[in-house]
Amino acid sequence: MSSGNFDSSCHVLQESLLSSASGYSNYRGILNWCVVMLVLSNARLFLENIIKYGILVDPIQVVSLFLKDPYSWPAACLIIASNLFILTALYVERRLAVGTISETTGRILHIFNLTFMLTFSSATVLSVTSMTPVGGVFSLGIYTVLFLKLYSYQDANRWCREIRQAKAKSLTRSYSCPDVQQSNGSAVHSLVSYPGNLTHRDMYYFVFAPTLCYQLNFPRSPRIRKRFLIRRLFEMLFLMQLLVGLIQQWMVPTIQNSMKPFREMDFSRMVERLLKLAVPNHLIWLIFFYWFFHSSMNVVAELLQFGDREFYRDWWNSETVTYFWANWNIPVHKWCLRHFYKPMLKRGTNKFLAQTAVFLVSAFFHEYLVSIPLKMFRLWAFMGMMAQVPLAWFVGRYLNGNYGNAAVWLSLIIGQPIAVLMYFHDYYVIHHESVKLSP
Amino acid sequence: MSSGNFDSSCHVLQESLLSSASGYSNYRGILNWCVVMLVLSNARLFLENIIKYGILVDPIQVVSLFLKDPYSWPAACLIIASNLFILTALYVERRLAVGTISETTGRILHIFNLTFMLTFSSATVLSVTSMTPVGGVFSLGIYTVLFLKLYSYQDANRWCREIRQAKAKSLTRSYSCPDVQQSNGSAVHSLVSYPGNLTHRDMYYFVFAPTLCYQLNFPRSPRIRKRFLIRRLFEMLFLMQLLVGLIQQWMVPTIQNSMKPFREMDFSRMVERLLKLAVPNHLIWLIFFYWFFHSSMNVVAELLQFGDREFYRDWWNSETVTYFWANWNIPVHKWCLRHFYKPMLKRGTNKFLAQTAVFLVSAFFHEYLVSIPLKMFRLWAFMGMMAQVPLAWFVGRYLNGNYGNAAVWLSLIIGQPIAVLMYFHDYYVIHHESVKLSP
Repeated sequence: MSSGNFDSSCHVLQESLLSSASGYSNYRGILNWCVVMLVLSNARLFLENIIKYGILVDPIQVVSLFLKDPYSWPAACLIIASNLFILTALYVERRLAVGTISETTGRILHIFNLTFMLTFSSATVLSVTSMTPVGGVFSLGIYTVLFLKLYSYQDANRWCREIRQAKAKSLTRSYSCPDVQQSNGSAVHSLVSYPGNLTHRDMYYFVFAPTLCYQLNFPRSPRIRKRFLIRRLFEMLFLMQLLVGLIQQWMVPTIQNSMKPFREMDFSRMVERLLKLAVPNHLIWLIFFYWFFHSSMNVVAELLQFGDREFYRDWWNSETVTYFWANWNIPVHKWCLRHFYKPMLKRGTNKFLAQTAVFLVSAFFHEYLVSIPLKMFRLWAFMGMMAQVPLAWFVGRYLNGNYGNAAVWLSLIIGQPIAVLMYFHDYYVIHHESVKLSP
Repeated sequence: MSSGNFDSSCHVLQESLLSSASGYSNYRGILNWCVVMLVLSNARLFLENIIKYGILVDPIQVVSLFLKDPYSWPAACLIIASNLFILTALYVERRLAVGTISETTGRILHIFNLTFMLTFSSATVLSVTSMTPVGGVFSLGIYTVLFLKLYSYQDANRWCREIRQAKAKSLTRSYSCPDVQQSNGSAVHSLVSYPGNLTHRDMYYFVFAPTLCYQLNFPRSPRIRKRFLIRRLFEMLFLMQLLVGLIQQWMVPTIQNSMKPFREMDFSRMVERLLKLAVPNHLIWLIFFYWFFHSSMNVVAELLQFGDREFYRDWWNSETVTYFWANWNIPVHKWCLRHFYKPMLKRGTNKFLAQTAVFLVSAFFHEYLVSIPLKMFRLWAFMGMMAQVPLAWFVGRYLNGNYGNAAVWLSLIIGQPIAVLMYFHDYYVIHHESVKLSP
């Protein structure tokens, strides 16, 4: 454009940017727009909530979720009792290492030990009346983790014995159990080899380490980084407060408000309530994810100088449901792959069947963690997990790229509150009915 | 990871992805997350709205916004009357071209014509009682556009005369008025040179063309693309329906609900209402932008084979307030630059003062378009536009990159509903007071 008063021609033949003919595609401002809109929308919801309900956050109430009677601590006792099973597993392994008992006897003892763990914990939670639902979920969660750890422990130790036998027989250089690749950090620790690992110290390191897969000589980080530890500890404490606050202030009133439409089966209001619940539920899940998989696990790992910090991978970019499940919870995924999926493939099961079996086991544990503490068997969690199989097939078949990613997000954002509402509704109905029957 | 039963070492020394030490930065899934969350949140708001108010969309009611009395069409008459001013401008230019009147007389006649245009239209809108606010905005909008076009028309023609005189005097080759660069499409049309353009046909082409800047020989597109035209026409009709529907269903009830907190000056509820209004208001503004600047202007341009389709630039990426104002409405921006800002700079005004003057003129026209149809002088629109000057300074000084972009979005999303609520509140109070006084 020429300047000055003689700028008589100021139009050029050109297309509008949004016409496909312009070839324009820079919409990076849209991401900022999305962020601003989300922040504003949620600021409004927050303000509306405060106006409607006032401040509902009450840290004292949290204690009552764990304890009904301050002189009876059933969840804590149950957790302390778990040492019995840990030590049983260790002693069985010691006998097996020296050959006092046969492999078959050892196998049977381990299976008995593991089965007894699950039945003992669920029986306790179901029978002890002073056990609160939150205390029940917490202790059963610890039992589930221990179950997976001890299963891995006996598997890994058995593999070591198999290698020892193979070595003794063929005298050829096979895969050597203690020859793990030496990483920089672990050089200072002396490496142990097979029966040398069957110590209390090694066992309890594994029990507290943020992994479900046992191995001799875990990779170790060179030192405890104090600034890193303090930051993660601060996050851990702050996010825990935030989680409790959000649940009390946002989640509970929303769920309580949605009971009426659910009782009356008013469909459009049910959907509205579900979508209203989806936002806080999803936000709480995201914060929980960061709190548990990043802050807490890194704190524990830093304290134990545990080197492998891959507790999650980039599930937020997942374009298939399978990718999401394989990447959001790496400890469980690693365990499933190493102790369940690969052994099944080795035994000749086909891939799809093995995958479905993994989802089945996962569905079982989800149900175990929810139904028993609530003392209510509804199979919603089980069905929710099993629904992932057809969902994974559908998304993998028909959607890809950003559409697949959006579908995964949608299933996360919508799927969870459906399950939450189902359980809460049934729990509410049972509780409400019993109140009506009692007088 | 080695496969099979001898996979005894499955941990590697590594950092978590979200630790800064990992160097990871691929969060492309987050954009999809934002989109899914926004769609879900708004789907819920939509559903809540339908449950609360039922269907409020009523196409017949739209007609009543334009017409109070079906036998009196004041807005249409006012628009038809504008031909008078168009023809006056043309005839003054013809006299000037042949030299029957002097430059000064011509200037005075033009100034008189332009001033009379604005005063006549505002006087009519203020005095005719059957004029509805919407009809008033519509006809004053057309008068504003015509004012800017006729101002540009007399400026451009004067420049042509100046060039003619310069040529006649010096006989050297100066900037030649009709020598516009010949673009591919315009080759078929024969080019006109200065006094040859003073025809009714040329004048009315300019009046209907989607630009405010007059020039001889506009660039022309080679043909009317039928598929393009039909698509834009369809968008135009569909989006108009959508706009009307959204205003009736979402905007009006939200505004009406916010009157109570505003009367009672309940601050937290005022903010909540403001944020609630911000979402539909912003959505409507975005749809209006696309409807007006992309669909409608392209339809008109395609019909007239007008070549320059740059009606907007990439304002959505703007990182400063100035960039936004210079890029969202290109016809007005071009006019301000060519007929106001550059002449001011030429006369020696400094840049900041000239820029402020542009905002002042823009503020005047915003106020003119709102206050007169509502018959209510409050200066909110004027102040809203003038507030852009300190805002532009602040954003340019303290924020850049994505923060600047987010600040621009925030000012758009929040700024507009504040002004809308201000006017609606005052209009409501006046209306309400008169109802209370009448019995």
